[in-house]
Amino acid sequence: MIATEIHLRQPDWLSDWLQQPAPDSERGRLGEVLALAGENIRRNSGGPFAAAVYALDTGERLSAAVNTVVSNHCAAAHAELQALSLAQQTLGNHTLAGRACVLVSSSAPCTMCLGAIAWSGVQALVFATTRADVEKIGFDEGPKTPAWRRQLQQRGISVRGPLLQRQGQAVLAGYRGPVYNGHNL
Amino acid sequence: MIATEIHLRQPDWLSDWLQQPAPDSERGRLGEVLALAGENIRRNSGGPFAAAVYALDTGERLSAAVNTVVSNHCAAAHAELQALSLAQQTLGNHTLAGRACVLVSSSAPCTMCLGAIAWSGVQALVFATTRADVEKIGFDEGPKTPAWRRQLQQRGISVRGPLLQRQGQAVLAGYRGPVYNGHNL
Repeated sequence: MIATEIHLRQPDWLSDWLQQPAPDSERGRLGEVLALAGENIRRNSGGPFAAAVYALDTGERLSAAVNTVVSNHCAAAHAELQALSLAQQTLGNHTLAGRACVLVSSSAPCTMCLGAIAWSGVQALVFATTRADVEKIGFDEGPKTPAWRRQLQQRGISVRGPLLQRQGQAVLAGYRGPVYNGHNL
Repeated sequence: MIATEIHLRQPDWLSDWLQQPAPDSERGRLGEVLALAGENIRRNSGGPFAAAVYALDTGERLSAAVNTVVSNHCAAAHAELQALSLAQQTLGNHTLAGRACVLVSSSAPCTMCLGAIAWSGVQALVFATTRADVEKIGFDEGPKTPAWRRQLQQRGISVRGPLLQRQGQAVLAGYRGPVYNGHNL
């Protein structure tokens, strides 16, 4: 029997987390996302990455997600792709373009999440750690264009980062779980 | 209330389709995928794109998917990303690397699906239509590196295409639905 539905679940502990009010500054949002990445390591619920989408007008949190590649049996279950998709589920629309939003991410996007950002309708990206930081612990960014920042900006999406980079590096350094770059079993 | 689960459903008509035996040649597989893209247009269930994953040893169909961006309220619900994710659900593993598989797609991948291919563990990609064919009907490929074929091949993923290109172009030419490149509402 082959699957005809994809069901991506965030870990149960995240629902409790979401009871907290959303942070009210960019620094606070990045801090929240880095704390979520750290919590995902501690709970052993996925890779050392987290992301969230916030409305730029009210500061409302429209989604938050951690990496769940292994638990959801889905190589696409990266934090950024899920945070964008969850925000679209929250709004009930395939695009976020009707509401000015920012994607805040613990790391710069891989190729797949870069594409997901371009399609999402999000207006801004803010991230903590860089390609080199992520490669240092064994993860790959994939076949990504070096001109990615400019190409997002040309599509009307502003890009800021690295910010709180040392704090982000400390989170990455604490990860001891599997590295799953496509051909690792 | 914000969403904490992403549930991507393929259209009901696809389940009936999957009762048919899988085609037993590369040409037959491409023909199946192009027929699925055409059916998605006729049924008005999504964009003019389809993809499927087949095991290279037995020819077994491990997944098939059509584009469901609008119906699933999810900009990431492209055919290729879903076909790869569904095959992983079928196998119960986040990587396809334990089983030699091919992704057959109606079009060359966008940036997001290119990244998804790199992470999926798939061994081969075969596609029908090109970037220019897709751009002709208004879709964008996103911030994609021009070196994408070589970069997949460097990761051990073979790439073949365009194949059955005219047949694929005819399918694309029949599409009259929405074009959803991120910032289109």
